[in-house]
Amino acid sequence: MTKDPTGSRQTRHELSDQAASPRFLASDNTSGICPQALEYLLAANRGDVPAYGNDDWTARASNRFRELFETDCEVFFVFNGTAANSLALATLCQPYQSVICHQLAHIETDECGGPEFFSNGAKLLSVPGDDGKVAPLDVERMVVRRRDIHYPQPRALSITQSTEVGTLYRPDELAALREMADRHGLKVHMDGARFANACAALDLPPRALSWEAGVDVLCFSGTKNGTAVGEAVIFFDRELARGFEYRCKQAGQLASKMRFIAAPWLGLIETGAWCTNAVHANAMARHLGTGLEQLGLTPMFPVQANAVFVDLPAKAQRYLKDKGWTFYTFIGDGGARFVCAWDTSKEAVDALLEDVRAGLAGVGMQSAG
Amino acid sequence: MTKDPTGSRQTRHELSDQAASPRFLASDNTSGICPQALEYLLAANRGDVPAYGNDDWTARASNRFRELFETDCEVFFVFNGTAANSLALATLCQPYQSVICHQLAHIETDECGGPEFFSNGAKLLSVPGDDGKVAPLDVERMVVRRRDIHYPQPRALSITQSTEVGTLYRPDELAALREMADRHGLKVHMDGARFANACAALDLPPRALSWEAGVDVLCFSGTKNGTAVGEAVIFFDRELARGFEYRCKQAGQLASKMRFIAAPWLGLIETGAWCTNAVHANAMARHLGTGLEQLGLTPMFPVQANAVFVDLPAKAQRYLKDKGWTFYTFIGDGGARFVCAWDTSKEAVDALLEDVRAGLAGVGMQSAG
Amino acid sequence: MTKDPTGSRQTRHELSDQAASPRFLASDNTSGICPQALEYLLAANRGDVPAYGNDDWTARASNRFRELFETDCEVFFVFNGTAANSLALATLCQPYQSVICHQLAHIETDECGGPEFFSNGAKLLSVPGDDGKVAPLDVERMVVRRRDIHYPQPRALSITQSTEVGTLYRPDELAALREMADRHGLKVHMDGARFANACAALDLPPRALSWEAGVDVLCFSGTKNGTAVGEAVIFFDRELARGFEYRCKQAGQLASKMRFIAAPWLGLIETGAWCTNAVHANAMARHLGTGLEQLGLTPMFPVQANAVFVDLPAKAQRYLKDKGWTFYTFIGDGGARFVCAWDTSKEAVDALLEDVRAGLAGVGMQSAG
Amino acid sequence: MTKDPTGSRQTRHELSDQAASPRFLASDNTSGICPQALEYLLAANRGDVPAYGNDDWTARASNRFRELFETDCEVFFVFNGTAANSLALATLCQPYQSVICHQLAHIETDECGGPEFFSNGAKLLSVPGDDGKVAPLDVERMVVRRRDIHYPQPRALSITQSTEVGTLYRPDELAALREMADRHGLKVHMDGARFANACAALDLPPRALSWEAGVDVLCFSGTKNGTAVGEAVIFFDRELARGFEYRCKQAGQLASKMRFIAAPWLGLIETGAWCTNAVHANAMARHLGTGLEQLGLTPMFPVQANAVFVDLPAKAQRYLKDKGWTFYTFIGDGGARFVCAWDTSKEAVDALLEDVRAGLAGVGMQSAG
Repeated sequence: MTKDPTGSRQTRHELSDQAASPRFLASDNTSGICPQALEYLLAANRGDVPAYGNDDWTARASNRFRELFETDCEVFFVFNGTAANSLALATLCQPYQSVICHQLAHIETDECGGPEFFSNGAKLLSVPGDDGKVAPLDVERMVVRRRDIHYPQPRALSITQSTEVGTLYRPDELAALREMADRHGLKVHMDGARFANACAALDLPPRALSWEAGVDVLCFSGTKNGTAVGEAVIFFDRELARGFEYRCKQAGQLASKMRFIAAPWLGLIETGAWCTNAVHANAMARHLGTGLEQLGLTPMFPVQANAVFVDLPAKAQRYLKDKGWTFYTFIGDGGARFVCAWDTSKEAVDALLEDVRAGLAGVGMQSAG
Repeated sequence: MTKDPTGSRQTRHELSDQAASPRFLASDNTSGICPQALEYLLAANRGDVPAYGNDDWTARASNRFRELFETDCEVFFVFNGTAANSLALATLCQPYQSVICHQLAHIETDECGGPEFFSNGAKLLSVPGDDGKVAPLDVERMVVRRRDIHYPQPRALSITQSTEVGTLYRPDELAALREMADRHGLKVHMDGARFANACAALDLPPRALSWEAGVDVLCFSGTKNGTAVGEAVIFFDRELARGFEYRCKQAGQLASKMRFIAAPWLGLIETGAWCTNAVHANAMARHLGTGLEQLGLTPMFPVQANAVFVDLPAKAQRYLKDKGWTFYTFIGDGGARFVCAWDTSKEAVDALLEDVRAGLAGVGMQSAG
Repeated sequence: MTKDPTGSRQTRHELSDQAASPRFLASDNTSGICPQALEYLLAANRGDVPAYGNDDWTARASNRFRELFETDCEVFFVFNGTAANSLALATLCQPYQSVICHQLAHIETDECGGPEFFSNGAKLLSVPGDDGKVAPLDVERMVVRRRDIHYPQPRALSITQSTEVGTLYRPDELAALREMADRHGLKVHMDGARFANACAALDLPPRALSWEAGVDVLCFSGTKNGTAVGEAVIFFDRELARGFEYRCKQAGQLASKMRFIAAPWLGLIETGAWCTNAVHANAMARHLGTGLEQLGLTPMFPVQANAVFVDLPAKAQRYLKDKGWTFYTFIGDGGARFVCAWDTSKEAVDALLEDVRAGLAGVGMQSAG
Repeated sequence: MTKDPTGSRQTRHELSDQAASPRFLASDNTSGICPQALEYLLAANRGDVPAYGNDDWTARASNRFRELFETDCEVFFVFNGTAANSLALATLCQPYQSVICHQLAHIETDECGGPEFFSNGAKLLSVPGDDGKVAPLDVERMVVRRRDIHYPQPRALSITQSTEVGTLYRPDELAALREMADRHGLKVHMDGARFANACAALDLPPRALSWEAGVDVLCFSGTKNGTAVGEAVIFFDRELARGFEYRCKQAGQLASKMRFIAAPWLGLIETGAWCTNAVHANAMARHLGTGLEQLGLTPMFPVQANAVFVDLPAKAQRYLKDKGWTFYTFIGDGGARFVCAWDTSKEAVDALLEDVRAGLAGVGMQSAG
């Protein structure tokens, strides 16, 4: 994207220097294509097939999603998460309506105005909430505080599962949000950038965390789960999907060689890798969280999926970066985020923990380990 | 994308029934990933790298583009052609401005309003023109016919190289358009969905058909040239590129795993496949065009790149479709479009010609062959 | 708006030099506020009233519209015609849909991309048509020629009554268009910039040219009919009006002092001036048209409402402009447009005719008068 | 706008029941046209003039603005404040950029997403701040906290003068904001819904609170100052105004009968009413504020312009509403807002104070008066 490989124009927060492969924990999108997705991608590369999703791979993948979710949902593939979330919200909202979300929601903090762009002006109304979760009463508060036409009509509730801080909504929490949404005529959108991690962590089938729990449209990430590119937008309320294929086309989200998005997804589902990848990433995060606690560091949020947030002294952070670890830091408050992926190894986590121990020692902090 | 693999919702024009691999001539986007692009994709899959284009593959690919174009251009990768063209035009135009283009231009006929969507309202002013090419005087006519504020200010000229009907602009034709553009303060955008085919056909280096010929921004297609996904947007006027990375991000066109777009492009360039693929596709189109002429059929436009347009009797078209050939037809006027790709074989073309001969015979038409 | 009173930046086509009052025939928007509208405006200026349309004047005006149209329609006031038409179309269409209209429609030629802007990308598909009128079969042709997702889904038919060239749709013509619209799932929008002139000319009540004839939403101009500012957007299909008040607010079309739009409208309706103004303007146009014919000039279109189009030799046009007449000319083809308003006097028309005679004589043309 | 004159769909917050004229203190937009503006409006109604701002009234008004501001600024008239602010911000920002403003700013709280709509997605980044004012360090904090492409690039600072809570920025405060804006490449927009009140209160010429203090573009309200409709958008950085007339046209903000916006503005300036109206309104607010203090009620913010905010017991509020007073209340915290206008009489304020006294007595509160 840029001439300069340090690429400051595209770096989010303070990204650590890049180093040898195993030291990437900044996000689950630094990993490559998992073997199962790759196998299907290569299989799909034989010969010619119709473009724009009129091929068997796309049909098969769509049908597999319906089996996986145990319902006759509508499935669309788009290129990335910004587009998936933004197009889904643009479908739910008119430009003069609004979306209620957590103040840490990716759509609010990290899409550079994507939802506002795709919807042509729908406003995000953000609420605080413990552990990165939206509480039903805060949803209601945003709806009822204004009823006049100068205030953009609340029309959708957007929640992230697992959340931006690596926590989870349980089915009963989702049900309570759905009930509140129904009370106020809101549609429910789920940003499932790490939906697989949620299913794996809660040991629940996809249906239990989506349509059974009241989700109208789910954006399910393949990229973070092990593919190269491509997210699934899944409408459980099929009426909402009307015209969505045109919306994707116009917005530059219709892949001509769709098979290369669909086939890897099919691989994830047919081999079960969508789940085993998540199980592994979650386990690595738990291992890291436990290790950090043993070093006397209390994670900032419960480690429930594949992310670990922890307060680290600045010197310790510097030490880790000098060692080549990548992770996001939050300026001003010492927070560090580590995300595990399908390819994060136990050895890497152990090495990180060892370096954390050394980094802390260097700053004169006692470890409990 | 849809449950039904025949996918009528996504079919453009009348797409013939799909069949065994070698019979796909509807478009160059039915082909798969070429070996060179695939080799680099696989190489790029080793280990973790930074996301969002802050990786070495992206830096290397960008630099290779600068070498290929022999100038210090700005290079960005986006997912597909709709996005590439629409984002480039949104950069050139304010919402109240307009884009002059050929009435057959893809941005006018086949983007479902994409340019209007991304630019938030910039209008396309289309002009006729022989052989799918815009003539300088028609550009001027669109500029001078109105000067009032009720008419969207012309701000960009968009041309397609090779054109939508498989013809070519020569460098002197491009220079004449540039001169006219300068006279009226227009920026020049080139839709290079088949730019490689133009370079190959004219045996000219990329610079001669882009910045040397006055192009400000080129959308260079990788997908049609042999990759799975991803187009390059190349700004020769670097000032125009300011902020484009944000524009891409907001519009859902920033790949997190950018290496999987960049590396295949690097493969195309480093191995020269970007050109050899095009040379091959052009040769196959020429072979087809010549063969059709020998059957007494005159192509509707000069066969200069990788597409062949020809009038075929309806019964002959039906015969070909029954034989499993895919091609686009133009309702009402009997026109058929055949497009050759990097993987179109001489055997396939010969087989098609044989079937055309038989199909024509079936409708009682004499062939000259 | 600009420092320079000749204001070339804002002039449409070639506007003649401005001169003493009676010589304005460029458009019906050069006239002022008619007495009846002014009387109500002044009455409405007594004391304070609630803002944003929550006042009695707005309620009364809205109810009077319901009486005038003899149906329980939804009525909204916006500031001008660009906004009225664009917001109405944005309500009918998603960004990926399209509007079929005449190629001379104001929304296509004179809104500077307004409909595309408000709708965030809906495309206008324009058709030719005799006497500025859309023919049902041309509507169908635009719908059926493409069915794929690369083509923006036709969703609305927009017609102008009276047309841009001063002609009229009869009720049976409107009914035929409605039937075609129903066949293809299109909503019907009417640009009623000169709707009053149509009612007056056809001597039909408003219902007969709107909802009875199948119009879903009508944009009824007050400005051209005698007010200072403000158009009525009238939804006969009330379901379509849902949320329209928010749409207006967001788009900068909610007047805080709404009474100053509503009261003059009320004046037009309660006094009958909406109709008598139109009757007068139409009569003046007929008088002008007849006079031109007597001079040997055949109007380019039937003179059915308040506009007259006629071919005038360039020298005659120059003569008229030197005499201070304002009118629009159409570059390159010698056409001149004269529009009569509520305040156009018979004396002015006679003076114009006299000057036309002199101007023609000056260019050596025989007059039949 | 609606059939029901109580018009709940359009009511902001809890608007009190409407009553006889003098009891309107909800906003300065419930007042009518002041005599000076009306006189010019009537004068402008003589005869025909060119449309779209190509008339003498518009030229004269524009020139008067240049004299009033003592600089060669660019002046445009639009219909209302939502449009003025939103179009100005759309001019300053690309869709992927952002605007820093106070969390109480009208553009953030009361435009129903207007700025996001007109800019096609520019995000508002709101900051807290004492007395409704933005502090320079809070501007900096919003700029420096993120530098990555996932965060919409801060590009403009928007401030309101007088503020939403009736306070004022002094010239030195504006200068400090300008300095911070320059440090971070921000343009400065001023929402001057009550700019006249600020000039009057600080007894400073318009230049001292606009371009001399670093404002790039000012939206100066006529409606709240005594006209029927129409705001002036004034660019002191003339380069920023390039193409703004097209932007207005496309966005439905170009009045055909522009004289009826321009002439009343000319009246306000030539007669000095723009200032005397504000002086009067400010004096009435001061009188109200002082009176409330004498009743033992401390205004929530310093009363510096024409608005008074005060905590009132619910029963007292109810008492006032029963007496027919209109004012905005802020649900949940007992706050009430009273705004004085050019036509607010001392008698009305005294009557209000008397009713407040009675209302408070009814709830058993001691008054100091």
